[in-house]
Amino acid sequence: MTLIPPATDLVRLDLPRPYLLFLGDVTEAGYAKTAFGLRDWAREHCVGELSFANAISVGLPKLTPAEARACGARSMVIGVANVGGRILDSWLPSLLEALAAGLDIVSGMHARLAATPALAAAAERHHRRLIDVRTPPRDIPIASGRKRSGKRLLAVGTDCALGKKYTALAIARALQQRGVDSDFRATGQTGIMIAGTGIPMDAVVSDFEAGAAELLSPAAAPNHWDVIEGQGSLFHPAYAAVSLGLLHGSQPDVIVVCHQPGRTHMLGHLQFALPSIEETIRLNLQLGQRTNPAIRCGGVSLNTSQLSESEARDLIAAESRRLQLPVADPIRGGPEFERLVDHCLEIA
Amino acid sequence: MTLIPPATDLVRLDLPRPYLLFLGDVTEAGYAKTAFGLRDWAREHCVGELSFANAISVGLPKLTPAEARACGARSMVIGVANVGGRILDSWLPSLLEALAAGLDIVSGMHARLAATPALAAAAERHHRRLIDVRTPPRDIPIASGRKRSGKRLLAVGTDCALGKKYTALAIARALQQRGVDSDFRATGQTGIMIAGTGIPMDAVVSDFEAGAAELLSPAAAPNHWDVIEGQGSLFHPAYAAVSLGLLHGSQPDVIVVCHQPGRTHMLGHLQFALPSIEETIRLNLQLGQRTNPAIRCGGVSLNTSQLSESEARDLIAAESRRLQLPVADPIRGGPEFERLVDHCLEIA
Repeated sequence: MTLIPPATDLVRLDLPRPYLLFLGDVTEAGYAKTAFGLRDWAREHCVGELSFANAISVGLPKLTPAEARACGARSMVIGVANVGGRILDSWLPSLLEALAAGLDIVSGMHARLAATPALAAAAERHHRRLIDVRTPPRDIPIASGRKRSGKRLLAVGTDCALGKKYTALAIARALQQRGVDSDFRATGQTGIMIAGTGIPMDAVVSDFEAGAAELLSPAAAPNHWDVIEGQGSLFHPAYAAVSLGLLHGSQPDVIVVCHQPGRTHMLGHLQFALPSIEETIRLNLQLGQRTNPAIRCGGVSLNTSQLSESEARDLIAAESRRLQLPVADPIRGGPEFERLVDHCLEIA
Repeated sequence: MTLIPPATDLVRLDLPRPYLLFLGDVTEAGYAKTAFGLRDWAREHCVGELSFANAISVGLPKLTPAEARACGARSMVIGVANVGGRILDSWLPSLLEALAAGLDIVSGMHARLAATPALAAAAERHHRRLIDVRTPPRDIPIASGRKRSGKRLLAVGTDCALGKKYTALAIARALQQRGVDSDFRATGQTGIMIAGTGIPMDAVVSDFEAGAAELLSPAAAPNHWDVIEGQGSLFHPAYAAVSLGLLHGSQPDVIVVCHQPGRTHMLGHLQFALPSIEETIRLNLQLGQRTNPAIRCGGVSLNTSQLSESEARDLIAAESRRLQLPVADPIRGGPEFERLVDHCLEIA
């Protein structure tokens, strides 16, 4: 087995933490997913929130940039998204106030922070950084396809936006609680802010997609686990290239298939029926075998957020019998989720 | 059926032709593939060649930039490649001479032409363009997955660099000779220079890969054929993401599988066995069905350049019997190739 030297310096963004979460004028939780994700999964790295009157709250202390700085904050994270991914003019006074208070600004928006001239000028004046986490590292190598030491788990999905990030985070947390040496490997902007590091896989040039995935989970100790956030779906008519490059480069020993019960069509593509869980398992194992012949399915993660507790419990039990695999909702947890994590550890 | 308006303005580079081919100091044909490709497939767009003493020749008239300009040339194409894809210092005097003579410069190298300060300055001084064909168009949309009118053929492969471009060019030429309304759609730098337009698919950000393929072969008349140059291989551990995005976005009605007899391992990846032709057909049909359920295999293109005429003829006949499909070497042509083209037209 050839060990590839870990090129983690290329991956490590080393985001300045702790964060102040910026919520702006957002009134719907759906547009503040990043802020909620950070509150749920990186609470220890968030000192507070900054939002306008009438905006939603994620329940953290309300702080001005100066107060946040006094509490140790090193950056303000734009925790909201809008259609188009643009920096709104109404946000500018708060962003400028944060820079003046000594905070860097971290953004996962499509638009580059420095493309707003007032921000670029203020950052230079105050010697602060404008950090766009959607910018991939430079000099990503072409994938080698060589097997790396250590164990890898990849969350894959029947579709986009149904729980791959939360599933990977929950499994990573469960492994750490069991004392298993492990890392969560982030592949999207919110995951990267939570982990403080990672690679925005959908922003990588396609020739380097698998190479970026190799870089993201470098060779590690034999018992170390990388729990890798998935992206898209092999069945998605727009994003399958991202999913396949990530699958090939990650070389997972274990996949966990994520699904949202009741979803019948691909998000934003109503002419495409959702694949079944079984089809999704089969295709990921089939294609994943190319770079890791030992790949196996560790179980199924159901996003039952739209079901009642008893409906969720019944469905999880029924699906587990039907598929003959551990099935759980990682957010609900419980013994089903413990069994899923056990199974992943056993089969790799 | 929803017709997407052809966004060809985004694709059309409108490369300035005819070309003067620059060969520099290259002594091995393998490093001058672009120049040979242009000579073979766009002879009518090449007025001559410029090479140093002792360098190879592609057999075109030897012209200085000024002579080429007088013969109507509008640009000089860098027809050679080196490891690393860099502009060599020894080329600079010729490139500057070309700009001074009134020629634009066209490059398919990884390095941007304008990154060489002397070139950037000279181009500005002489009001000439430095054109990097590896730069994808801006504002590529996310793929819609919607079926487009017109017929599409995609050359796919068991591996990289075994004849997908030549196969697509030969089929496009054969269709034109039969009076079939058709276009060759280029996806790599040499193909783009030959066609004068196209999208460098391996340089597209992975989230937009399928969207770029949709843009490349826009909705067309029902009997129009797009013959699309393939990239990589679904089995390649580094480049499969490119191949899958291109397959999904191209929505081919017909694939032609390209293979080089005798190749046993993936190029540059000796630990990966080459897939069989049958496996390659199966996987491309399986995954291609996602965006075009009517996808079919039109035949197999063998690169028999390393075999004698009689060896090639015997192998082509044997493979055709074994696979129960038309098999041909498009470069050798002959009745086998005519049958392959017939079959592609019949099944779509």
